[in-house]
Amino acid sequence: MTRPTIRSVAARAGVSKSLVSLVLQDSPKVSPERRAAVLAAVAELGYRPDPTARSLAQGRTRAIGLVLDDLRNPWFVDVLEGLRPVLHAAGLRPVLAEARSEPDAPRTFADLRVDGLVVIGTLPDLALVEEVAAEVPTVLAGTRLAADDPFGVDVVAGDDAAGVRLAVEHLVGLGHRRLAHVAGTGPVGDLRRSAFEGAARTGGAEVLVETGPLTEDGGHRAGRALLTRTDPPTAVLAANDASAVGVLAAAADLGVEVPGALSVAGYDDTSLARLRAVSLTSVDNAASEVGRLAARRLLDRLVDPDAPADLQLVAPRLVVRATTAPPAGGGPSTDAGPPDLRR
Amino acid sequence: MTRPTIRSVAARAGVSKSLVSLVLQDSPKVSPERRAAVLAAVAELGYRPDPTARSLAQGRTRAIGLVLDDLRNPWFVDVLEGLRPVLHAAGLRPVLAEARSEPDAPRTFADLRVDGLVVIGTLPDLALVEEVAAEVPTVLAGTRLAADDPFGVDVVAGDDAAGVRLAVEHLVGLGHRRLAHVAGTGPVGDLRRSAFEGAARTGGAEVLVETGPLTEDGGHRAGRALLTRTDPPTAVLAANDASAVGVLAAAADLGVEVPGALSVAGYDDTSLARLRAVSLTSVDNAASEVGRLAARRLLDRLVDPDAPADLQLVAPRLVVRATTAPPAGGGPSTDAGPPDLRR
Repeated sequence: MTRPTIRSVAARAGVSKSLVSLVLQDSPKVSPERRAAVLAAVAELGYRPDPTARSLAQGRTRAIGLVLDDLRNPWFVDVLEGLRPVLHAAGLRPVLAEARSEPDAPRTFADLRVDGLVVIGTLPDLALVEEVAAEVPTVLAGTRLAADDPFGVDVVAGDDAAGVRLAVEHLVGLGHRRLAHVAGTGPVGDLRRSAFEGAARTGGAEVLVETGPLTEDGGHRAGRALLTRTDPPTAVLAANDASAVGVLAAAADLGVEVPGALSVAGYDDTSLARLRAVSLTSVDNAASEVGRLAARRLLDRLVDPDAPADLQLVAPRLVVRATTAPPAGGGPSTDAGPPDLRR
Repeated sequence: MTRPTIRSVAARAGVSKSLVSLVLQDSPKVSPERRAAVLAAVAELGYRPDPTARSLAQGRTRAIGLVLDDLRNPWFVDVLEGLRPVLHAAGLRPVLAEARSEPDAPRTFADLRVDGLVVIGTLPDLALVEEVAAEVPTVLAGTRLAADDPFGVDVVAGDDAAGVRLAVEHLVGLGHRRLAHVAGTGPVGDLRRSAFEGAARTGGAEVLVETGPLTEDGGHRAGRALLTRTDPPTAVLAANDASAVGVLAAAADLGVEVPGALSVAGYDDTSLARLRAVSLTSVDNAASEVGRLAARRLLDRLVDPDAPADLQLVAPRLVVRATTAPPAGGGPSTDAGPPDLRR
């Protein structure tokens, strides 16, 4: 009951292994009689070509390189959950590398002759990605370029400006008029910050900004700086969940009650936000859908390398949990009307 | 000021590119005169062979495949922190895959012709690892085999039995006499569970066991089952930090104060345990040191493929934080003596 091989097919048909290969490749060099004999042996033995052997014979590895920005920040896990089923269904095998520790990862994958590349999160080295994208079909997922698409690479990302607006409108709707942002850097950090400033001003709120790093420690420092001001904010939107958890820790240290005296929201809706002890209001940036669409985009690109590059933005969603509430002293000021909690 | 290439060396020396290659490979086929001309051109131009091109020419990829068990459980991050500098210093480039979602990852890496393989955490498919280890130098890091080393593969791991003993002695030393374990499965889960049962009985404590899964949800269910018993435990050691955080959430739901009415300890000392809002007592299993030693073991194995396989265990360390304290009603019972908090 061993699995039939190309060798057993050849023996059954009374031909050479290489002739079996020619038939499986649909070569016109094979006579109709010998083709029929080989196909009969294939059917009798139930032979199925090994997909790995077949793709190696075609000079393809069927491997797709995925470059992640930072393994310590779990937001990429949902992107992978979206990517994988699409790649698997196409017979492709994801392999990963972390750009933070392996800045040459796109080159490593090109050297390993992967069939395609997906760069997830903040770009490691724009020039290197540009260089490799010229050799290997490449899609950027969950990140943005500083300018729009300077070298013709496909991009699939969450709509950060829309996500920040959802969070700010939630806080303004609750009655907050003094909002702070813990800001990141790079194209995504800049985008979230400018969207925050725009949406807060549109909502008639004052704006304070502290800059990360977007780690728990960075959020803790930013939170302490904000809460020890003479005029502290009543609500904070951090540019990711890890830094929001740091703001929560700073509030706890200083005896500032959340959400009674301070509302805190994060971004990315990672597993951290969903921990029962954290229960953080956060913006779900549809990471799984970003992954799914990025994988489909890559498959399209493999079929049609010359199609024009495409930018797809996926709509985010606000998840309200236990860390946001109306400010102490009641709801919105009279000129803003009552809070509309149904929105 | 462009970087000199093998082509520019050949032009300067007045020879072919392939003759330059022969000289760089120290081939005996080259005449002394032409060798001298090539080496002079190399020195004049400051030519240095590109390490990637050289290794590809030698049929080596300089890539090392790292198979992780589950990207959602951050314990592996410290293993990578230990592995990477050693691999980088040897000019090797790590690439990753997750065994949970890519059970064929060892085969994928073998097909990509990696120079070596490190399997981190619970083994995906023992038969497949055995098969690939016969083709590619392989080291297991931070995991154990059910029996000792059934197929001659190097293993570097934390000493789980010693780590569990440290945690149990801490809890017994505080005065706890009714201990529960949230247990995992597989070789590591079995090892931690049997070490727990042995150490608790040695300490004169009663033993309760609930089985995972070792996620926050699994810990939450196990914690609820333990705390709603008519005879609940006064202390819980969970087999990892994620499930310990679930036990903390169950205690909070039921109004059981930690550490006043319940002590909770985790295992692995991940970033989760270190979060300020969690501050979990946990066993640091020296993951970074495990990674460092595993990388060194792999380098030794690349040099000497026929050396006998080796098992190295690394000593763990208990990190006491805010979730463990003497049981309600005071310290240890009289027959155990006063708690020795200096240990």
